[in-house]
Amino acid sequence: MSNDKDLTMVEGGGVASAQGFQAGGVFAGIKTPGEDKYDLGLLYSDRDCTVAGTFTQNSVVSPSVTVSKDVVARGSARAVIANSGCANCSVGEQGLVDARDVASIAAGQLGVDADEVLVASTGVIGVELPMNIIRDFTPQIDVRSGDEAGLEFAKAIMTTDTHAKQIAVRYQASDGSTVTVGGCAKGAGMIHPNMATMLCFISTDTDVDQAFLQSTLSKAVTLSFNQIDIDGDQSTNDTVAILANGASGSPRVSGGDDDSAKFSSAVELVNRHLAIELARDGEGARHLITAVVEGAESDADARKAARSVAASLLVRTAVYGRDPNWGRIMMAVGKTGIPLVETQIDIYVNGIQIVAEGKAIAYNPQSVIAALDQPEVELRTNLNCGDGFGEAWGCDLTEEYVVFNSAYTT
Amino acid sequence: MSNDKDLTMVEGGGVASAQGFQAGGVFAGIKTPGEDKYDLGLLYSDRDCTVAGTFTQNSVVSPSVTVSKDVVARGSARAVIANSGCANCSVGEQGLVDARDVASIAAGQLGVDADEVLVASTGVIGVELPMNIIRDFTPQIDVRSGDEAGLEFAKAIMTTDTHAKQIAVRYQASDGSTVTVGGCAKGAGMIHPNMATMLCFISTDTDVDQAFLQSTLSKAVTLSFNQIDIDGDQSTNDTVAILANGASGSPRVSGGDDDSAKFSSAVELVNRHLAIELARDGEGARHLITAVVEGAESDADARKAARSVAASLLVRTAVYGRDPNWGRIMMAVGKTGIPLVETQIDIYVNGIQIVAEGKAIAYNPQSVIAALDQPEVELRTNLNCGDGFGEAWGCDLTEEYVVFNSAYTT
Repeated sequence: MSNDKDLTMVEGGGVASAQGFQAGGVFAGIKTPGEDKYDLGLLYSDRDCTVAGTFTQNSVVSPSVTVSKDVVARGSARAVIANSGCANCSVGEQGLVDARDVASIAAGQLGVDADEVLVASTGVIGVELPMNIIRDFTPQIDVRSGDEAGLEFAKAIMTTDTHAKQIAVRYQASDGSTVTVGGCAKGAGMIHPNMATMLCFISTDTDVDQAFLQSTLSKAVTLSFNQIDIDGDQSTNDTVAILANGASGSPRVSGGDDDSAKFSSAVELVNRHLAIELARDGEGARHLITAVVEGAESDADARKAARSVAASLLVRTAVYGRDPNWGRIMMAVGKTGIPLVETQIDIYVNGIQIVAEGKAIAYNPQSVIAALDQPEVELRTNLNCGDGFGEAWGCDLTEEYVVFNSAYTT
Repeated sequence: MSNDKDLTMVEGGGVASAQGFQAGGVFAGIKTPGEDKYDLGLLYSDRDCTVAGTFTQNSVVSPSVTVSKDVVARGSARAVIANSGCANCSVGEQGLVDARDVASIAAGQLGVDADEVLVASTGVIGVELPMNIIRDFTPQIDVRSGDEAGLEFAKAIMTTDTHAKQIAVRYQASDGSTVTVGGCAKGAGMIHPNMATMLCFISTDTDVDQAFLQSTLSKAVTLSFNQIDIDGDQSTNDTVAILANGASGSPRVSGGDDDSAKFSSAVELVNRHLAIELARDGEGARHLITAVVEGAESDADARKAARSVAASLLVRTAVYGRDPNWGRIMMAVGKTGIPLVETQIDIYVNGIQIVAEGKAIAYNPQSVIAALDQPEVELRTNLNCGDGFGEAWGCDLTEEYVVFNSAYTT
């Protein structure tokens, strides 16, 4: 087994930090203009990549997702083209025609096969992609190596995020070579009506078996992006994809050895970091809420209960109001229906115990209010009935969320 | 089959309108005082009743619920004692001792068996019931016949509801006798922190087989209280109970005949009316939202999709902002995972079509904004792939909800 101590952070790193990857972005005018804005980006590998992905479970799906799913099903990719400002969703048959055309435009520009290009779109639902703009501006993207290039791509997928989210980590493989895993993501923040998507792209320069790449990504997503909640809604365009190109020359990763353990740790850390950053940047948010549930009968039970706490409107408004309202935490854990004994439950707010054996205990209210004033609030519940552990992340619910999301489109 | 045309509304009627039922309420000082406030109520039948009930699925349960569940399991009841201001929940072993004591106090006062008294509590979690107050004030309740008495009981269960919710309906049984079904409910509005409960009590003077009473109630609750959503949270104290005392002398109802059909219609109408009133009175609400889904493969699918639309924060903020944001409705229907074909979906706002075959159609924006200005907004989605029909109710999400629920307890 490996752990995070084997990993080194790459300062300023992101999705273009791994060897053999290039990226870039441009402002094409698909979304509202503004300083330092980008809305069309390319991610490119100088050689074939193994690819894995997880996608929205929504029955209404953007054709951009359909195209990317097909690439993942074939298992091999060379590039990603992503746009913000338009979701390419609920536009009838034209959506799939346009998504395939976008892949072809990127393929032509980069000199790769269109079947190896993932497509991602995020923005307004119900509006067709501006194909002329995409055709005109794709050639203007300066696809290149380096962290600045990765940052442009990270900015090109942003909608209402207040800042770009990216990270890269490195570890030493068993042959002494250096492996990099980097990524970027955009959040489910939805200031502009109809915008609602989580996108994440991860690249690595080690060589990875496709089945192992998919299982590693799926596990990491289960522990990260599936454990964040901003408003309980699921976009038509959600995509997490990982590309592995082997450019580092490190031993092939396929599970069961030390390199595989290090690789899995790196992918989990990248996913976890990006998921937490999305929760922290939820629209109108003042606090990052980390819900921890321990002592459950299973990890799955603990994750379910943690998700319920982080997602509860009553918990989220209480955190906003700096109110140590433990009854709402009990309610949120209990409504999941997981096994528990009420009289065994302990609850802590940023380390200060407020409930013991299912009942309130004497605590200094000012200390708890001060704890709730911190930008990060941890709500920890111990069920004391097993070893199950789970975490989930969310943000407080403020008036600003309501104001943002009730803005007129008309 | 029967239908609503067989039913007559009883003006000013409620839980004490059926023959042989009496009620009353008093202000005992369990909750904050105020004009026309009650916080302790009794409902009493002058003869034995068949009883059925549905209760919260939360793993954290008030011992008051535990006591009532035991009464329902035995199948026979004579009375209900209910208090607001204190949920009798998360108070350790004392909670069950107190709940049983409350039943005994009511039984002693009314001259019935304590095993036949249901107990209901709603209010702050984590605080013990003020037993001395309950002991002192229960004898002061003026238990009597009449609608005024029923209204007192309806007020005694209110927490943050802005008004009492009650209804009674009558129908003529096959022998010419008149049967009354009446009830009252309190909502899941939660202005005061820690308050979170839905309570509903229904009484009828016809004689009903216990199994049929339970199945009729369960079906009615599935179509009503299980289809409303104010904040997605489920209380530790939710209770819906029905008492049938046979005082009308009408033929026994046990399913399969015309009397049974009329009785079921009456119970469904009472539940539906009370559920809609709860949704309308959600805290901070400006609009009642009725989500209708038709043309689904099954009624269960349609109900699930309707619930998802009514519960979506993005739909609810859009209604508040008078924004005909159909992309959010598509997203909410799609995220349930029910079978659908996106290019067959039609969407209507208060009768005005805004989406045809999955795409926006030309409509007059001012007409739709005017429709969204109505106090009642119907969002109708036709999936055009079957006969499945479902409705759900909710309210818009406003800044007031956030302000109410983030108020300090400390």
